Amino acid sequence: MTQTLLAFDVYGTLINPNAMAEVLRPTLQDQAESVAAQWRASQLQLSFRRGLMGRYVEFSVCTRDALDVAIAAHELEVDQATRDDWMAAYSRLPAFEEVDGALASLVAAGYRCVAFSNGTEKAMQQVLEHAGLAHHFDALVSVDDIKRFKPDPVVYHHLSRRMKVAHDNAWLVSSNNWDIQGARHAGMKAAWIHRDRTALIEDPSLAPNLEVDKLDELADKLAGMR
Amino acid sequence: MTQTLLAFDVYGTLINPNAMAEVLRPTLQDQAESVAAQWRASQLQLSFRRGLMGRYVEFSVCTRDALDVAIAAHELEVDQATRDDWMAAYSRLPAFEEVDGALASLVAAGYRCVAFSNGTEKAMQQVLEHAGLAHHFDALVSVDDIKRFKPDPVVYHHLSRRMKVAHDNAWLVSSNNWDIQGARHAGMKAAWIHRDRTALIEDPSLAPNLEVDKLDELADKLAGMR
Repeated sequence: MTQTLLAFDVYGTLINPNAMAEVLRPTLQDQAESVAAQWRASQLQLSFRRGLMGRYVEFSVCTRDALDVAIAAHELEVDQATRDDWMAAYSRLPAFEEVDGALASLVAAGYRCVAFSNGTEKAMQQVLEHAGLAHHFDALVSVDDIKRFKPDPVVYHHLSRRMKVAHDNAWLVSSNNWDIQGARHAGMKAAWIHRDRTALIEDPSLAPNLEVDKLDELADKLAGMR
Repeated sequence: MTQTLLAFDVYGTLINPNAMAEVLRPTLQDQAESVAAQWRASQLQLSFRRGLMGRYVEFSVCTRDALDVAIAAHELEVDQATRDDWMAAYSRLPAFEEVDGALASLVAAGYRCVAFSNGTEKAMQQVLEHAGLAHHFDALVSVDDIKRFKPDPVVYHHLSRRMKVAHDNAWLVSSNNWDIQGARHAGMKAAWIHRDRTALIEDPSLAPNLEVDKLDELADKLAGMR
C-alpha cells in the first residue's frame, strides 16, 4: 500500500514568522508588532501579485521588498545594515512548540513527510535545520523548481508529480487559509491548522477536509478519516 | 494623428475608498479607519490570489469577502443588514476633489479618456454616475470582459485591443503602485498619482514614466513629455 504523503507548509505552519516582532522590538519598540504584521502581509501580497503578473523572483526578494514596504508605510528610518540583520534573522525563526514532537509521531506512524514552501530549497533547509526539524522530511519541495508561487495550481501539481503520488493520497498541511484553498482548488486534500482563530475560508467550496488546533492532533484525526 | 489614450484606474485614483471609514464610523467608532484599511487591503489580496489561482469572480465578491475578513480579524459582531448597507455604500463613494475638473481639462485638451477597472462595467457605471464623472469617458473597460484581474498582463493587452490603440500610445493613470507596475510590465506607459506618499514601486524596473501629486497636474506634465 502506498504511504500517505503529508506536505507541510513551512512559514506560519511549522515556523513562526510572528517571532520577528521580538527581533524588531529593540529598534522599533511598540511599533514592532505592527511592522512585523505588515511585513508578513506584504510578503504574501507581493508573492501573489508577482505570481499573477508572471514575474517570478525568489521568495526572499518578496520578503526583502515587503520589509521595505512595511518600514515605509510606518514612516520609519531604518538603515541598510539593520534591514540586513532582520533579513538574516528570518532564517533563524523558531518552530511552533509542538511541531518537533508532532512530526516525530507522524513519521513513526508511517506517514511520508515533506516540506513544501514558496521559499527556495536552500531557504527551507536553513530554517528547518536551525529549528531542528530537517531530519523529519523525505524531501524539501520548493516552488522555485517551476518558478511560480502558491496558490497557483501548477505548484500543487508539481508537488504530486515530484513525489510520485496521486492527489487523493496527498495532504497539504497548512495554517494559511490561502494555501488550504489553493490545495483544494488543485484537487488535493487539506488539513488546516488553526493558528489564527480569526482567519476565514473566503471561498466555502474550498473548505479544508480536516481542521485541528495544533499539529499534534493531526495523527489522531487522520487515523479517524481512514 | 491618433489621439493619445488615457486609461484611468477607478478605485483609489478617481474614487476615494478611504471615505468608507466615514460610513463605518457610526457603528465602529474608533475602529472605523482600521477596518476600512484592512477591507481595502484584503480586497486587493483576494483579487490577486483569485487571479493567481485562475478562479475569477466579479470584483464585488472579493469586496464582500474582504469585508467579512476585516470584520473577523477585528473580532467584531456586525449583522448581515449592516454589511449589506456598507456594500451598497461602496457604489456611492465620492471622487477625489480635483478629479472632475482635471478630467474636463484633459478631454478639452484632446485626450481620449476611458475608465479601466477590476470592477464590472455596471459597478463602474454606478460609482462614476453617482460621482458625476461618467460623462468624461469614451468607454468603461472592465477586466470582467476577459475574467482576469489586474495586474495580469492579459488585462492591459485587452484594454489596448478593445480601444484599438498601440501600447506606446496609451497611458495607464493610477494611484495604485501595483497597477503602475502591472501596466509597465505589459508595455504600457504609466502615470502614478501620489495619493499615498508612503507607497513604493517594489520593482524598480517597472517605475512609472511620470509622477504627479494630483490629477490636475497631468495635462501639463503630459504636454511636457511630447
